[in-house]
Amino acid sequence: MSSTDLYVVADFCLIPIGTGESSVAEHIAECHRVLEKSGLTFKMHGYGTNIEGPWSEVSQVIHDCHAAVHAKGAPRIATNVRIGTRVDRETPVGRGNEVKLKRVEEILARDEQA
Amino acid sequence: MSSTDLYVVADFCLIPIGTGESSVAEHIAECHRVLEKSGLTFKMHGYGTNIEGPWSEVSQVIHDCHAAVHAKGAPRIATNVRIGTRVDRETPVGRGNEVKLKRVEEILARDEQA
Amino acid sequence: MSSTDLYVVADFCLIPIGTGESSVAEHIAECHRVLEKSGLTFKMHGYGTNIEGPWSEVSQVIHDCHAAVHAKGAPRIATNVRIGTRVDRETPVGRGNEVKLKRVEEILARDEQA
Amino acid sequence: MSSTDLYVVADFCLIPIGTGESSVAEHIAECHRVLEKSGLTFKMHGYGTNIEGPWSEVSQVIHDCHAAVHAKGAPRIATNVRIGTRVDRETPVGRGNEVKLKRVEEILARDEQA
Repeated sequence: MSSTDLYVVADFCLIPIGTGESSVAEHIAECHRVLEKSGLTFKMHGYGTNIEGPWSEVSQVIHDCHAAVHAKGAPRIATNVRIGTRVDRETPVGRGNEVKLKRVEEILARDEQA
Repeated sequence: MSSTDLYVVADFCLIPIGTGESSVAEHIAECHRVLEKSGLTFKMHGYGTNIEGPWSEVSQVIHDCHAAVHAKGAPRIATNVRIGTRVDRETPVGRGNEVKLKRVEEILARDEQA
Repeated sequence: MSSTDLYVVADFCLIPIGTGESSVAEHIAECHRVLEKSGLTFKMHGYGTNIEGPWSEVSQVIHDCHAAVHAKGAPRIATNVRIGTRVDRETPVGRGNEVKLKRVEEILARDEQA
Repeated sequence: MSSTDLYVVADFCLIPIGTGESSVAEHIAECHRVLEKSGLTFKMHGYGTNIEGPWSEVSQVIHDCHAAVHAKGAPRIATNVRIGTRVDRETPVGRGNEVKLKRVEEILARDEQA
């Protein structure tokens, strides 16, 4: 069971704790730098970051975001991750989150035509 | 304590359960219609929806999404919500999520100039 | 659609931000006091709190936890909430989370008998 | 940065999608069997499972729960994970979630004595 590496479409939101300042932007920017080096597809939004790829790589890059934010001085971190996998069809690599959103937009576009 | 209605910057991801089909796009489109009627600021992304407003209104509209998705046939629903509040400064109404993202982008833009 | 008040079985995890200390125990204890006054069924575990009741009441008490934790000095808070509703059967009031766990335990107990 | 393997105190809630039945107990029981084989410390509650250990092992076992639940017939899965790491002090191995809860209970016990 552990031999396969499922493809995962995910979203995560990392919160530094105990920093003494309420702004988290510097820490999130640091995550952006880590994500960029990973080569994985990702996109930040107002309350988290869409990311996708093989499970082990997505897990590793979130781990490395934690390591980088700790290195920047955060003594503690709490992250919330949403993880989606499916076996009924192939997820188009690097386009899983984009395709999900597009499908909803197509349905809504039909509303306007009707 | 319960007299105030905190302003909340949030993100939620609704999952219909027991529908017999792996696609959730029709249900998410239904949420979009509910959200649009609410008048609140919201923006869908690949793994959820940014939304903000007074706590009671944000809570009510997510409730109404559940009611609408149940009405469309989902016997059960599981939603994940991220909720942020702050009292150190005013959140610009309807622009809380946007402003958070902009701050990170400004920090990253300085990287490129350096 | 907004007239009903769905019964919700939930779990939430509240994180104070910008407090300058990595411990969150005092803030979580404050939430416990707020929850106790609410009269709703709840149970803390190692990474959050099970809670259930009518949607509006569960939402209100989480709001009041935020207000109380802000009053104790946290300038900013990020909470993660898992919300479950169902319309295929009645949830036994105050026992939704307990019953879910029991069903899993019953299935596992059959493993041992087999 | 990626050389270390941070110790993680976590909680996850796995939701099978597209199964055609609203009950998820059989799938969660399957996760329990996978978790037990992992040797990691875990504890189920009404809306998820506390789990802890080295990051890579916790990630791997949640992956293996997905694989097992797919093998049982779920075409799609959505999981929510809360992940906590800290570098200000050692987490007592296998007792991170338990210790967090104990600290809150100690604070509340003082209330009753006062």
